[in-house]
Amino acid sequence: MITLSLIGIGTGNPDHVTLAAVRALNSADVILLPRKGEAKSDLLDLRRLLCEQLLDSATQANIVEFDLPTRDAKCAYLSAVDDWHSAIARVWAQLMDKHLPNGGRVGMLVWGDPSLYDSSLRIAKRLTDSGRAVEVKVVPGITSLQVLTAEHKIPLNALAEPVQITTGRRLRERGWPSDAATVAVMLDSGGAFTTLPQEDTYIWWGAYLGMDKQCLIKGPLSEVNDEIIERRAALREAHGWIMDIYMLAKHPLL
Amino acid sequence: MITLSLIGIGTGNPDHVTLAAVRALNSADVILLPRKGEAKSDLLDLRRLLCEQLLDSATQANIVEFDLPTRDAKCAYLSAVDDWHSAIARVWAQLMDKHLPNGGRVGMLVWGDPSLYDSSLRIAKRLTDSGRAVEVKVVPGITSLQVLTAEHKIPLNALAEPVQITTGRRLRERGWPSDAATVAVMLDSGGAFTTLPQEDTYIWWGAYLGMDKQCLIKGPLSEVNDEIIERRAALREAHGWIMDIYMLAKHPLL
Ligand SMILES: C[S@@+](CC[C@H](N)C(=O)[O-])C[C@H]1O[C@@H](n2cnc3c(N)ncnc32)[C@H](O)[C@@H]1O
Ligand SMILES: C[S@@+](CC[C@H](N)C(=O)[O-])C[C@H]1O[C@@H](n2cnc3c(N)ncnc32)[C@H](O)[C@@H]1O
Repeated sequence: MITLSLIGIGTGNPDHVTLAAVRALNSADVILLPRKGEAKSDLLDLRRLLCEQLLDSATQANIVEFDLPTRDAKCAYLSAVDDWHSAIARVWAQLMDKHLPNGGRVGMLVWGDPSLYDSSLRIAKRLTDSGRAVEVKVVPGITSLQVLTAEHKIPLNALAEPVQITTGRRLRERGWPSDAATVAVMLDSGGAFTTLPQEDTYIWWGAYLGMDKQCLIKGPLSEVNDEIIERRAALREAHGWIMDIYMLAKHPLL
Repeated sequence: MITLSLIGIGTGNPDHVTLAAVRALNSADVILLPRKGEAKSDLLDLRRLLCEQLLDSATQANIVEFDLPTRDAKCAYLSAVDDWHSAIARVWAQLMDKHLPNGGRVGMLVWGDPSLYDSSLRIAKRLTDSGRAVEVKVVPGITSLQVLTAEHKIPLNALAEPVQITTGRRLRERGWPSDAATVAVMLDSGGAFTTLPQEDTYIWWGAYLGMDKQCLIKGPLSEVNDEIIERRAALREAHGWIMDIYMLAKHPLL
């Protein structure tokens, strides 16, 4: 029997890790660390650092790095993702067979929280569906969205109002979601907010949240639109990669 | 100068507290603990317990309990909330003047995360707007929604789809939000989901998440609708209060 813990680790600030996550890391026999290719090697370094800082010296955990299969960019998005998840599940299964032939505890570090735009739960389900004796546990972690709101000192929702969390792609395709006073946007490959009417829209933007290179910009969209686009391009150029997220509202939020 | 830290503490499981929250608690000169009246005294006990467990014995923090003003139920909702926030801000200001006349660090324990349906940020803003030398800091915490998804082992969003977080009141008034594949519902005074079409709707429900008395129910709405209503009533009767939250989706989420 394998216990597979999907451990939310926040977004790079080791202080955002919970006591439950520290405990889960320290009770793992094997910790799996995916290597996602060159550009984001900063993130692998952050994960390694986190393990170093949070694992007791007495801990037995065997840290196993592995190469994440790459997604087929030629296929339609959803079917490519489907194949990709299956490929990752096979890699996880092989690693479990190799490192824990008699069962044990596997810890997977999940960026932010496992519930939010993350595939670990879907991949884990393939293992259990395929009949493996795997028990999945989820340890919640602080999301990039929570670091965004904390650093800007804003709420996620306007008073008693709904909030929509969406993707850059969807915002571009559909515009402002009809039933939400505030909108949080993730996974934007760049500037989906420029497609919105600029009047009366406020934005709170953040990149590399929780890391040393964190960058925040906020203001009426009409004033900061260009600044964000330029800063994003410059940061991406400087670091070789970027992750950013933002909140939008029709009125100042506080 | 006062530094006011709004510290997200999760929803009752002390393991869900982050290292940053533990640090913020331990570096406070004064910790303010609101008393919210009889029915939810469990929650005050939980907060007290958390302070006991997480504060170093060397910590100087002065724990100050205070009675939260009550909201005027006779007025229209938004204006009553507005007055209520002002009344709370006045109480915070008095406590700061009394316990930290020369400035210092105040810690406020915030249930879950300060960004999500919580008024602390709005109340804090009244202090700064009134010209007080108060610097606000926000320490993110695990939300009840994250504990819900972690315990049910489900994602918040369907693959690459948006998610709406809303209130029971809004779900009753407007039905399923038009642009969301999944919906998370908070602050439901009871059974707003019964107003939805039951076919093809799944629900993942949780009460007292993170606490010993945690209760989970999930399934197609057509099968578990009545069970949830009955269980909720029984639990509320047994404990004198209830807090519950749920996720809705048109398809199984994994
Ligand atoms: C695949 S999703 C993973 C989200 C993660 N599970 C979480 O809880 O935050 C990646 C997206 O999250 C956001 N993101 C993650 N980490 C971030 C960070 N440190 N700073 C800014 N945005 C971040 C970006 O919008 C990015 O495109
Ligand atoms: C005023 S809001 C505060 C939310 C909090 N800031 C958070 O991050 O979870 C209160 C609502 O949160 C949800 N909630 C909070 N704690 C909960 C718990 N332990 N179990 C279930 N629901 C909870 C319920 O929907 C409740 O009506």
